[in-house]
Amino acid sequence: MSPAIKTQNPAFVLRAVHDTVIEERTIPKLRNDRDVRVEIKQTGICGSDVHYWDHGRIGDFILTTPIVLGHESSGVVVEAGAAVKNVKVGDRVAIEPGIPCRHCDYCRSGLYNLCPDTVFAATPPHDGTLSRYYVVAADFCYPIPEHMDMEEGALVEPVSSAVNMVRTGDVRGGQTVVVFGCGPMGVLCQAICRAWGTKRVIGIDIVQSRLDFAASFSGGRKEDVFMTPKRPEGVDGMEWSEHVAKVIREQFDLGEGPEVVLEVTGAEPCIQAGVHLCKKGGTFVQAGMGVENVYFPISVACVRGLRIQGAIRYVTGCHPSAVDLISTGKIDVKKLITHRYKFEQSEEAFRKVKAREEGTLKVMIEGVQDDTKI
Amino acid sequence: MSPAIKTQNPAFVLRAVHDTVIEERTIPKLRNDRDVRVEIKQTGICGSDVHYWDHGRIGDFILTTPIVLGHESSGVVVEAGAAVKNVKVGDRVAIEPGIPCRHCDYCRSGLYNLCPDTVFAATPPHDGTLSRYYVVAADFCYPIPEHMDMEEGALVEPVSSAVNMVRTGDVRGGQTVVVFGCGPMGVLCQAICRAWGTKRVIGIDIVQSRLDFAASFSGGRKEDVFMTPKRPEGVDGMEWSEHVAKVIREQFDLGEGPEVVLEVTGAEPCIQAGVHLCKKGGTFVQAGMGVENVYFPISVACVRGLRIQGAIRYVTGCHPSAVDLISTGKIDVKKLITHRYKFEQSEEAFRKVKAREEGTLKVMIEGVQDDTKI
Amino acid sequence: MSPAIKTQNPAFVLRAVHDTVIEERTIPKLRNDRDVRVEIKQTGICGSDVHYWDHGRIGDFILTTPIVLGHESSGVVVEAGAAVKNVKVGDRVAIEPGIPCRHCDYCRSGLYNLCPDTVFAATPPHDGTLSRYYVVAADFCYPIPEHMDMEEGALVEPVSSAVNMVRTGDVRGGQTVVVFGCGPMGVLCQAICRAWGTKRVIGIDIVQSRLDFAASFSGGRKEDVFMTPKRPEGVDGMEWSEHVAKVIREQFDLGEGPEVVLEVTGAEPCIQAGVHLCKKGGTFVQAGMGVENVYFPISVACVRGLRIQGAIRYVTGCHPSAVDLISTGKIDVKKLITHRYKFEQSEEAFRKVKAREEGTLKVMIEGVQDDTKI
Amino acid sequence: MSPAIKTQNPAFVLRAVHDTVIEERTIPKLRNDRDVRVEIKQTGICGSDVHYWDHGRIGDFILTTPIVLGHESSGVVVEAGAAVKNVKVGDRVAIEPGIPCRHCDYCRSGLYNLCPDTVFAATPPHDGTLSRYYVVAADFCYPIPEHMDMEEGALVEPVSSAVNMVRTGDVRGGQTVVVFGCGPMGVLCQAICRAWGTKRVIGIDIVQSRLDFAASFSGGRKEDVFMTPKRPEGVDGMEWSEHVAKVIREQFDLGEGPEVVLEVTGAEPCIQAGVHLCKKGGTFVQAGMGVENVYFPISVACVRGLRIQGAIRYVTGCHPSAVDLISTGKIDVKKLITHRYKFEQSEEAFRKVKAREEGTLKVMIEGVQDDTKI
Repeated sequence: MSPAIKTQNPAFVLRAVHDTVIEERTIPKLRNDRDVRVEIKQTGICGSDVHYWDHGRIGDFILTTPIVLGHESSGVVVEAGAAVKNVKVGDRVAIEPGIPCRHCDYCRSGLYNLCPDTVFAATPPHDGTLSRYYVVAADFCYPIPEHMDMEEGALVEPVSSAVNMVRTGDVRGGQTVVVFGCGPMGVLCQAICRAWGTKRVIGIDIVQSRLDFAASFSGGRKEDVFMTPKRPEGVDGMEWSEHVAKVIREQFDLGEGPEVVLEVTGAEPCIQAGVHLCKKGGTFVQAGMGVENVYFPISVACVRGLRIQGAIRYVTGCHPSAVDLISTGKIDVKKLITHRYKFEQSEEAFRKVKAREEGTLKVMIEGVQDDTKI
Repeated sequence: MSPAIKTQNPAFVLRAVHDTVIEERTIPKLRNDRDVRVEIKQTGICGSDVHYWDHGRIGDFILTTPIVLGHESSGVVVEAGAAVKNVKVGDRVAIEPGIPCRHCDYCRSGLYNLCPDTVFAATPPHDGTLSRYYVVAADFCYPIPEHMDMEEGALVEPVSSAVNMVRTGDVRGGQTVVVFGCGPMGVLCQAICRAWGTKRVIGIDIVQSRLDFAASFSGGRKEDVFMTPKRPEGVDGMEWSEHVAKVIREQFDLGEGPEVVLEVTGAEPCIQAGVHLCKKGGTFVQAGMGVENVYFPISVACVRGLRIQGAIRYVTGCHPSAVDLISTGKIDVKKLITHRYKFEQSEEAFRKVKAREEGTLKVMIEGVQDDTKI
Repeated sequence: MSPAIKTQNPAFVLRAVHDTVIEERTIPKLRNDRDVRVEIKQTGICGSDVHYWDHGRIGDFILTTPIVLGHESSGVVVEAGAAVKNVKVGDRVAIEPGIPCRHCDYCRSGLYNLCPDTVFAATPPHDGTLSRYYVVAADFCYPIPEHMDMEEGALVEPVSSAVNMVRTGDVRGGQTVVVFGCGPMGVLCQAICRAWGTKRVIGIDIVQSRLDFAASFSGGRKEDVFMTPKRPEGVDGMEWSEHVAKVIREQFDLGEGPEVVLEVTGAEPCIQAGVHLCKKGGTFVQAGMGVENVYFPISVACVRGLRIQGAIRYVTGCHPSAVDLISTGKIDVKKLITHRYKFEQSEEAFRKVKAREEGTLKVMIEGVQDDTKI
Repeated sequence: MSPAIKTQNPAFVLRAVHDTVIEERTIPKLRNDRDVRVEIKQTGICGSDVHYWDHGRIGDFILTTPIVLGHESSGVVVEAGAAVKNVKVGDRVAIEPGIPCRHCDYCRSGLYNLCPDTVFAATPPHDGTLSRYYVVAADFCYPIPEHMDMEEGALVEPVSSAVNMVRTGDVRGGQTVVVFGCGPMGVLCQAICRAWGTKRVIGIDIVQSRLDFAASFSGGRKEDVFMTPKRPEGVDGMEWSEHVAKVIREQFDLGEGPEVVLEVTGAEPCIQAGVHLCKKGGTFVQAGMGVENVYFPISVACVRGLRIQGAIRYVTGCHPSAVDLISTGKIDVKKLITHRYKFEQSEEAFRKVKAREEGTLKVMIEGVQDDTKI
C-alpha cells in the first residue's frame, strides 16, 4: 500500500433525501495558518445526521447542494498551519464540529453556541466529517490521551453536549437532579451529574430497556430509575403531568423536589411533569428538541420562582471536560456503542439508526482505510 | 379629642364574598421583642385584595374565617419591642407585608419570597393592614424620609414588587428592555429600568390610555410605547405572536431583540410574543399572573438559549431600593394615584377598583382618623 | 443506673486562661418552640477552642465570664419544641454551632455567616457544647443516617466548613485546584474537590507527614502533593513566592495555572505564591486565618483579573452536603481521628491539641456517660 | 487640495525614550476581509502612552523597534473589507484599540481582556493610532451618532474602561459605592455609577481641585466628595488606613459600609482603607495600577467574606455602553478635555501630560488635516 493512496479523499455524500453516495473529493486545503487537517478515524451517527438523510432539512437548514454527512468524529492531525500551537501533526484528537464566526457579540462574550454564522459540520451547506480528511480550526481539536481509543474520541462530542446540559443546569455537589430521558444523552447527563458529586440522580423514561441500561451505566443504580406511568384515557394531559410529578416526588422521597430537572426528551408530558416536579427556586433545563410548542404550566414557573433555561450545543470547556470524564473512566462511553460499520457501509449505518430498534444506542462508522473501496 | 380614643382599633373586615364590615378589634399586642406596632396612615388597594373580596379565594388560599383586608400600607411606629434597633417610636415607615418563617431553607438561603410559611397580610387566614393598628416584625418596616408623604410610603410596596421583577431580570445599564403591560406594575418596571441606566425601555399594551400614561410616567416617552396589533380572525395564535414579535423588533429597530423581556400581564399572547422577541441568550421574566397554563414556544427557548425566570414578591433589598427610587424622585408614584377614600369608605374603594374603569390606576384608603366613625 | 441521673448536666467550663473545671450546670430549657435539647455524644476539638483556653480571646471576642467549651458536636435529640418539624426526639443529629439573628440584612439575604449577632458555641460569652445537654435551634440540627456513627456526626462541622471553602471557590467539575495546606481542613478541601469532579487537585505543605497523609486520604495520590521548597537566605520573600508558584506550575504541568486556589494556611508565603499561581480570571479563596496583614501582589491580582474571595464559616446547604459526603463514604473522616478522650479527660484532650505534635490530627471527646464522674 | 494628498499617511512615531518624530508611513492595507481602514480624527492621550515615551517600557512590554503612539481614537471608515457588516465607508466610529486572538480559551469564553496575544495599539511592538490611517478589525469599531463629535468619540475608550470597572464591581441600582480617586477614571466611574441608579456614590482624593471637579462632573455633588486626611508622623500606615475607613464611614453615615469600593488609584493607603471600608460580603475592585505589591489586610478580607476583584481593559459590551452613556448626555466627557493640540504638535501634547500640572485632565490631539505639515 503506497502512501500515494492516502491522497484519495473518499466522502460519504448526501445528494438528496435518501440519496447518498461515496464519492472522491479533492483533499481540502487549510484555509489559514490556524487550521489543521485531520484524518478521520471514527464517527458516531447522531439523530440529526439521520434527519437530514431522511427529510433533507432541520428547521431553516435545508439541503440544496450535496453535503458530506457526519459530525461526531475523532482522527489524527496530518497537517497543521504555521500558527497552530495546541496540537501538532500526529496528535490524536476529538473534533468539536461547529466553528463560530468569532466576531459577533455572542462569540465575543463567550456564548459562541448562539453564533448565527457557525460553520457546523454536516449542516447545509457545510460538509461534515465522513470523509478521509476534514479541515478544521485547530483550537476546536482536543488531544486525547493514548489510553483513549478513537471510538472514545469520537464520542467526546455527545459527552460534551451532555456536559453543556449539566453546566447549563448549574448542577452542584450535594444536589438532587432528575433527568427526563434515558437514551444516550439522558444517561450521559446522569453519569456526569454523578461524576460531579450530586447527592442523587434519577432517570425517567417510558421504555424498560432504556431504564435498565441507565441503571447499569457508569454508576447508575436500579433504585434510581423510574418508568413514567401511562396516562389513562380521558384524563387531561396537564392534570396527568402534575400527577406524575407527585408520584415521582413520593417514589423517591424528594420532599420539595429536585434542585435541577434536565429535560432531554423534548416530549410535552415530560416538559410538563418536569416543571411541576422542580423545587421552588430550582432550575429546569430544556435540552431535548421535540415539538415546537407545548402546553406549559407558566403560572407554576412564576409562583415558584423557577429558572427555565434552554441548552444548546457546547461552549468553551465542554469538550475538555468530556475528554477528562472519559479518560478517567468516570464515563464508560464504549458501553453506548451497539453497532459498528466500515466506511463503505455508511448508508447501512444510517439505515440502522433510522430503524430505531430497541437496543440500538450508538452506531459507529470507521474512518477510511487503505483498503476501503469506493 | 382625648388620647383614649386612640385605643380603639377599627378594622375593615371581609367576612364572606362581598360581605365586609368595619368593626372594632382589640389592639394587637407585640408577639415578641422584635415586633413593632404601627398606626396605619395610608393603604393602596391591589388587585389581589379585590380578588379575595370578589371571590373569597386565590389558589389554595381560601377565606374560611373573617380577615382584615389590605396590605400596601405605611404608618407611624407607636410601640417597639425591646430588641428593635432599626426603627423607633415615632418613625414613619413603609411596611413589607409578608413575614417569612426565617427557619426554612428558602429563608436561610435568602429566597424568603418562596417560604411556604410566610404570614402575608390579608392572605387567609392572616389579617391585613386596614385597621388602625398593625403589628409586624420591625425588620420588615422601612423608615421613609420626611419629604416622602404617607401615600408615597404606602406605594413603596408595589414599587418594591417591581424592583424584584427588574432584579429578577438582572437588568443592567446599557441594555434594552421590553415590558409587556403598561398598568401600574408595568409602568413601574419601565421607570425602574430607566432609573437603573438601561439604554432603552419599551412598553407594550393593548389600551391606548395606558400607553399614553406610560409615555408620560417618570421619564417615559411617546416613542417608547407600542400598541399590540389585533389578531385577524382565522390566524393561528402562535403564528400571530411570532408576527407581533417581528413587528416590535422592526418598529424599534431592535436587531437581535432586547436582552430582557419583562412580562407583567400574564396574558398568553404576550407570553408567546415575549419569548419570540427575546434576544438569544437573553432573559424573559414571567412576573404577571394570568392563566394557569399557556401554549408555549419551548423549542425557541431551547434553541436560543433563553432564560425564562419566574418573579414573585420581593426579597431583601427590594423595599429599601423602592424607598430610594421614590425619595429621590426617580419614580413619581403619586402620579399613579387616581382615587382617594376615607377609611369609612373602604368598601366604596373596593368597588371602584372592581369596576376596572379606564383611567383608574391606584386607589388609596386613608388610615383611621380621630373622627372616623364606625 | 436510674434515669434520674440523666438530669445531671456536667459541663467542661473555661473560667480563665488555662483554668478549666468540670462543673454541674442546670439543664438548659428550650427558649422557644423551635428549639431542641440535644444530649451530646461526641465532640471534636478545634484550634479555636484551644486558642480561647490558651489566650482567653480571639480578636474582639474576650473571655470575661466562664463559658462551656466545644463546638464540633453530635448528639441525640431528647426534647423538641412544639413547632419543630425537621427532627424529633430520638434522632441522631449533627449540630451547626452558630445560630444567626435571622433578622439582619445578612441573614435575610442568605449570608448568615456574616451576621454580627450570631450566637456561636464556645465564643464568649456563649456556652459551647461540652456538656451533657445543649439547647439549639432545631433547623441547625441535621439528622444523620444510622450507618454514620457519632464521631462522624461530630466531624460534620469541619467538613461543612471545608464545603463552604470549596463552594466559595465556585469549584466545578473538570477544573484544576491547588490547595495550600494539608492539615485537616486542607485534606478535607482536597477530598471534596475530588468528590465534586475536579480534574486534578494538588495539595501543598511544608511538612512531609502531612503530605503523606494527604496522599492517602479519600482518593488522594502521591503524585498530587508537593512540598514547598525552603526560601534560601538572602532571597526576597515575594520573589521567592513567585518562584515557588513557577515551580509548582512546572512540576504539575499546569500551563496557565489552576482555575482555583484554596489557601487554607493563612501563611504569608502561601498567600503570595497562591496569588502568583492562579490562572488569569481565576479564583483565589482565602480560607485560612493567620497573620492579620501580609505583603500582597495586588498588581498581579489586578492585571490578571483575579477574584480573591474570603471564606468564613458556613451557609445553608453546607452541613447537608457534609452529611452526604460522609454518609456516602466519599470522605472518610474517621481517618482524621488520632486521639480519643473520655469527657472527664477533657483538659487532657486540650493539652494534646495544644502540643501540636506531628501526627496529631483530630482529637475527640466522648459525651457524658452514665458513669462519668465529675 | 487634491484628494491625492490623502494618500499620505503621516504618523507620530516613538523611536526611543523621548525621541519622537512625525514621519511618512505607507498606507496600511486591510489584512483580511473583516478589517476596516479608519481615518483618525481625534486622539486622547493616556498615562500609558506617556509612560512609553518617558520610560520605553511598561512591565514586560519593551520598546525595541519604533512604534506609532496613541490608542484613544475616533475616526471615519474609509475602506471596509468584503465581509464587514457592522460598519460601512463613511461611518464615524470609536475604536476599541485591543484586538484579541479570538482563539485562546480566554477569548472563547468571553474574557478577551485577558488574552495574552492581544494586538494592542501603541503597545510594543504594535503601532498605535496617531497616524492618518489605522487598520483595525471592523467589530472593534463602534458607530457613533451624528450628534456626538469626534472628541467624544475618542473618549469612548476611557469611558469604556470605566464601564468595565463598574461592571467588574457588579454595581447595582440602589447600592452605595465609594470610589478612591477623582482623576479622569475616578470621576468617570462615579458618573457611571450614578447613571446606573446607585443610591449614593462617594469620591475620595487627596487633591482639592480634583474633588471640586468630581463634585461638578455629570451629576456630582459637593456633599459626595471627601479629602483623605493626612497621616500624622509616627502613626502606623495600616492603623491609619483603618482609621481613614472609619472616618469615611462616619462622615457619610455609611453604617456597615458601601456594597462596592472601586479603587482607581493604585496607592497603598487607598487600597488598605478601601478594604477596611467595604461592607461585609461586599466587593472591592482593584482597577488602578500603582505599586506592584502592598501591605494588605488579608484577614479582614477573609473574615468579612469580601470579594477582591481585579479589573483590566474592557470586554464585549463596554464600548457600546460607553457610546450610550455619552450620546445620551449622561456623561459629559467634553468637560474632561483641558487641552487641544494639532497633529503636528503631538510631542508638545505629550509634554503637557507628562508635566502633570494641576488642572490638566484630558489632552487631545487632532487627526491629520489636509494642511498638516510634516
